[in-house]
Amino acid sequence: MKKVVVIGGGTGTFVVLTALRDYSVELSAVVSMADNGGSTGRLRDQYGVLPPGDIRRALVALSDTSQTLRSLFNYRFSSGDLRGHNFGNIFLSALEKITGNFGDAVKLGSEILNIKGSVIPVTLDNTTLHAQLASDAVVRGETNIDIPKHDPTVPIKKVWLDPPAHINSEAIKAILAADMIVIGPGDLYTSIIPNLLVEGMAAAIKNSKARKVYICNLMTKFGETHGFKAQDFVNTVEKYLSRGILDYAVFNNKKPSASVLKRYLKENSHFVEISGLRDNGRKPKFISANLLDIGNFVRHNPKKKLAKILISLLN
Amino acid sequence: MKKVVVIGGGTGTFVVLTALRDYSVELSAVVSMADNGGSTGRLRDQYGVLPPGDIRRALVALSDTSQTLRSLFNYRFSSGDLRGHNFGNIFLSALEKITGNFGDAVKLGSEILNIKGSVIPVTLDNTTLHAQLASDAVVRGETNIDIPKHDPTVPIKKVWLDPPAHINSEAIKAILAADMIVIGPGDLYTSIIPNLLVEGMAAAIKNSKARKVYICNLMTKFGETHGFKAQDFVNTVEKYLSRGILDYAVFNNKKPSASVLKRYLKENSHFVEISGLRDNGRKPKFISANLLDIGNFVRHNPKKKLAKILISLLN
Repeated sequence: MKKVVVIGGGTGTFVVLTALRDYSVELSAVVSMADNGGSTGRLRDQYGVLPPGDIRRALVALSDTSQTLRSLFNYRFSSGDLRGHNFGNIFLSALEKITGNFGDAVKLGSEILNIKGSVIPVTLDNTTLHAQLASDAVVRGETNIDIPKHDPTVPIKKVWLDPPAHINSEAIKAILAADMIVIGPGDLYTSIIPNLLVEGMAAAIKNSKARKVYICNLMTKFGETHGFKAQDFVNTVEKYLSRGILDYAVFNNKKPSASVLKRYLKENSHFVEISGLRDNGRKPKFISANLLDIGNFVRHNPKKKLAKILISLLN
Repeated sequence: MKKVVVIGGGTGTFVVLTALRDYSVELSAVVSMADNGGSTGRLRDQYGVLPPGDIRRALVALSDTSQTLRSLFNYRFSSGDLRGHNFGNIFLSALEKITGNFGDAVKLGSEILNIKGSVIPVTLDNTTLHAQLASDAVVRGETNIDIPKHDPTVPIKKVWLDPPAHINSEAIKAILAADMIVIGPGDLYTSIIPNLLVEGMAAAIKNSKARKVYICNLMTKFGETHGFKAQDFVNTVEKYLSRGILDYAVFNNKKPSASVLKRYLKENSHFVEISGLRDNGRKPKFISANLLDIGNFVRHNPKKKLAKILISLLN
């Protein structure tokens, strides 16, 4: 059975895992550990635990159990003492407190949710994402970059982890054994790149014989990728991964309807244009297709469109 | 396989379940739903759920799974947003919110904890325990009786549930099919009697062909059973159950050491004296034995002493 490693965090990774989970491939999700917002951030602050949120989402994506148990893990208390906390986050944090080891907590969560494949924290080190803007201002913490506590029109110059984080040995193993590595989609600087910032990660990807595929976002994000075109996404990933490592970059070429796009304008989020892509005759090979899902949200269609392209690249 | 139903709540029931779980009997725990203190009380108040605490304790007592998972369910957050809450309570409450049914939540908890036997809420109705004191003052809520918000020297005249609660049909089934019913030990007015107050419960016990055994407490409790001797415990249970229903009443005749008893004096808790037991030639038959566990806490020795007596009564 072919092995696929999906690298990311957040809803983009959920979509790719959902796309591939019905195929007979061995799926691993390597998940960012930089989140410090919302329920996850409060649990980190109050209990000194590692961030559970993205891990929880990946576990639920790969879970082969009752809908009730899947719903339980995503259940969010809307009021009271537990307001804003997801049950699954509480589960992982309590287990980390008991076992003293986030990796063990993820393994037990994987058993209870009967997951197909594996979910791997990219690092087991406690670290904080930092960003330096073009203005040289430094923003500390993933949530302050994600929900901009800075001028969102000023581009991000670079991001880094402090203290530095070292790659989880399980992530190395999965990456080296993979037949295909899928990076993205997802918030570029807050879900995708934080994986590549982990020491040993870029080298592991480079050393893997896997086909390496980047899936570009559909929409820009104010404060992160404002004004980005498709080429900018690829360039940024290559900046942190090294040039010539990605084999394929996959773009959507179907623009959502004006009425759908209008709702994204409120958040200053714009369609990612593929115009001006420069094929330099080197890797990655550019693939563009209609990947759009039908509905009120602009997202990749997982099962019919995204899966088809990924499986064709795997075989 | 013989069927045993244990009726109670709290740590006394935990001890009986622990005593019997290694024997080849089919165990059911019918558990009080009157608790409204601590984590359980806050969850009831804030989320409108049924009380999870006693159910959680019984589930863990019967759980046949890893120590990690058992520890997880009893894990109590000591600080932060989740301060004072047990993980298992959060689990049951979130599931009740998702399924809309506490019975289903208990069933899924039973599966995850791989319990031997079954844990049955005595009622699925939302109700509040009330007590009238000898002074005629009325105390509302289990926790206000348990941690007395009343003059603890004034005896309790009567207790009742308001609104009235109806017996869970699963409890009827288990009780009617039982070979032995074990009532107690446990806080008399706040863990044991609240079961007997549920409509249909006394009748079910009466109609069962099972041997009915009451296990008397080792110590009195200030504000509940202050000044009680063994006979008073039996009389009170019979008051709510009817006379002539209990077949056996089991007492401890071994006084703890003076140094151990001294620590209980701080809470005005005294050894339950068996002097003056009046055997009227009617049921229950009185059985007294050394049931004391060795250690700093006055509790029944589950595996060596309590189990031996209960198994002998069953056969």
